[in-house]
This record gives sequence, C-alpha cells and structure tokens, in this order.
Amino acid sequence: MSKLRFEISVSLDGYVAGPNQSEESPLGEGGEQLHEWVIKLAAWRESHGREGGEVNASTPLMEESLSGVGAVIMGRGMFGGGPGPWGEDPWQGWWGKEPPFHMPVFVLAHHEREPLTLGETTFTFVTDGIESALAQAREAAGEGDVTIGGGADVAQQYLSANLVDQMQLNIPPVLLGGGTRLFDGGAGAGLDLEPILVVDTPDVTHVRYRVG
Amino acid sequence: MSKLRFEISVSLDGYVAGPNQSEESPLGEGGEQLHEWVIKLAAWRESHGREGGEVNASTPLMEESLSGVGAVIMGRGMFGGGPGPWGEDPWQGWWGKEPPFHMPVFVLAHHEREPLTLGETTFTFVTDGIESALAQAREAAGEGDVTIGGGADVAQQYLSANLVDQMQLNIPPVLLGGGTRLFDGGAGAGLDLEPILVVDTPDVTHVRYRVG
Repeated sequence: MSKLRFEISVSLDGYVAGPNQSEESPLGEGGEQLHEWVIKLAAWRESHGREGGEVNASTPLMEESLSGVGAVIMGRGMFGGGPGPWGEDPWQGWWGKEPPFHMPVFVLAHHEREPLTLGETTFTFVTDGIESALAQAREAAGEGDVTIGGGADVAQQYLSANLVDQMQLNIPPVLLGGGTRLFDGGAGAGLDLEPILVVDTPDVTHVRYRVG
Repeated sequence: MSKLRFEISVSLDGYVAGPNQSEESPLGEGGEQLHEWVIKLAAWRESHGREGGEVNASTPLMEESLSGVGAVIMGRGMFGGGPGPWGEDPWQGWWGKEPPFHMPVFVLAHHEREPLTLGETTFTFVTDGIESALAQAREAAGEGDVTIGGGADVAQQYLSANLVDQMQLNIPPVLLGGGTRLFDGGAGAGLDLEPILVVDTPDVTHVRYRVG
C-alpha cells in the first residue's frame, strides 16, 4: 500500500511559522528563514519555473519529495478562504490558475463543496474526516505515496491517529522564539519512531523517520 | 577564553523531561527514554562505575563531553532542596558523598550559602546572577570549558543573554507529548547558529551548533 508521508521545515525550537502570522506575513516573523535552504536549490527552482540555484546534499532529498507522490492532503487553513462556509464566490486557493501540485489534492473541510479543477490539479473537499481523506487520497495516488501538504494541525491529527508511515523534518539552524509549533497538544506521543536517514548541510539538517 | 557550552538530550518534540514530573519521577513520564542512548554506552558506564556497555558513533561525543570541561554551572532546581532558604540542615545535593562532577560546580541561587565540598566536588552558590556565575566558573575552569549542567531554564537564560558558545542537542526518536520544553519563552530567538557536527545512530541524532 502507498505510504502516508510528510516532510516539513521546522525551526530548532520547534516552530513551522514564526510569531504574529497574518495575511501579509503568512509565515510569521522570521518564518521565511525556515525555507531558505530549499529556495536556493536548483531542483526546487526548476520545479517552480525559476532559474539558477545550487546542487548540494539536500538535492536528492528534494528530488525524492517531488517524485513518487500521487496525492496530497491539506487542511482548510492551508487551502485558505476560511474559516466558515464557502459563500457564493468561493475561494480558489492561493496558487492561481496553475497550482504547482499537478496531482489530486484532498482538502479537509467542514463545509461541503464541489471539486475544483485548476490546470492539472483537482481539489476535492472532504468533510467526513481524516481517515476518509486518506482512503480517497490513497485510491487517487495509485502506486504513489500520499503526502501531507500542511498545516501542522493536519500533521498532528494524522500522527495522533498513528496513520503516518514516514516523517521528515528539515531543521535549519534557526530559533524563532515563538509561532506555530509542529508538535503541540501531545501529538504523536509514544509513537514508535526509527531514524532512517540523516543528511546535513550548513543550511539544514534533515532527519527522516519511519513511524509506527 | 574557555567556551561556555552545553549539551542536552531533548525529545523530537522538544522536551527535556516528560509530563507530570515529581520527586519520585524527576524525569517525568517517559523521560527516561531521553537518556537510554547514553546509559548503554561503555564510556558513560565506566565514568559512573558501571561495567559493560557498547561502543558506537556516540562514543567520541560522549568522551568529548567528559573531557576538556573545567567547571559546571547549574540551577538551584537541579541542585535541589528548594526553592526557598536553605534552612539549618541544608540540602547536600542528590549525589551522595562523591558527586560525579570532580570539578568546581557553580549553583545559581537566590539565597546565600557557604561553599560545600563533597569528595572532589565543591559547590559554590552564586546569588548575583548568571554573568557572575559564568565569570567565576571561567576562572575556576582555567584552560577548560564551562558547561551548563541544567536545567533547561538555566540554558535558556544563558542563550537569551547570548553567552553560549556551543550547544549540542542529543535527539532520540521519541515524542513525549508534554513536559518541560528546552526552548520556551522565546529563548535564544534570532541567535546566529551554525551546525558544526551531525552524528546519527539508530538511538539518537546528535547536532552540535556554534552559537553567536
């Protein structure tokens, strides 16, 4: 069966976004530092239509994260336009007419909505819970894995339900001092974790775990 | 000048002790898992008068942490017997008549007390702040480094004052779900960190940072 995996950039003090998040500052104060390691990679830049960039020890991990994935699960918070009912002119996501996913995306939502297709990406809104979203994503992914696109609350829910197979933390040498914690509310406490890969560069330490 | 360094075992979700700490359970629920990697090392066992144990990639780091240190700083909480005035029959520490430090130890305290010598360890109680404790520890350490023995609150104070030169986190693959956080209250936010060593074993991931 395809794996449920996620990878996420998290500060050394455990935050996935800095303090004082807002619409103008969705990553919070200092939160952009979490992603500097990836934005400088040629592999990431190419996948986002940008030129240049470097190749380093993070490159194979970045390429793995872009390949072998057949579907994405994300929370309503990450899709945006909420919270609350969708309204008459519903939010179309942050990504414009060609979202970068190019695969089925399942959005955990409290309010029903017809699927939305933009470019090669179809967003399906799932209102009957995380297990249903995972079952639908697995079916859509075929041989591919399912990845959690975010946010941290969605990762926490899947960890706490012991449904995650693999987790990779990308830890840049940054202390944000506040913000949104990756692990909060006891998420995943007591899960059986096995480190299966550690890769370090001056910019980031990657640690990949087999879970459960 | 000698370095101020500390190393600490911390769960993947950022806790140095588990939930519900008490006198009977000083590491909190599950907290003993943070230290399993070190207790199985022959180098640690020998230094604590125990036999057996194994040699693995953590061994050189353990040996480094035992050598080159000339003085220790710890908080009153770690020394114990508090909080509050020392009283007529003052607490002598948790370690019996031969504490394992074998070097000068400086205890950050709010209440004055004469130095206490037990075996090869002299505890000096410092009531005029962390910078004074560091100056005294540096002088006592001579060529050696000064290390922070704990707790997390003491490490946080020195980090926030930008007085730490090197920090090593030992991260076993454990999610405790609650307890005492290593990084709390914004400690060290914005410090300049540089990863200088990453060592991984199936039991623990070590990441050492140059600070400031």
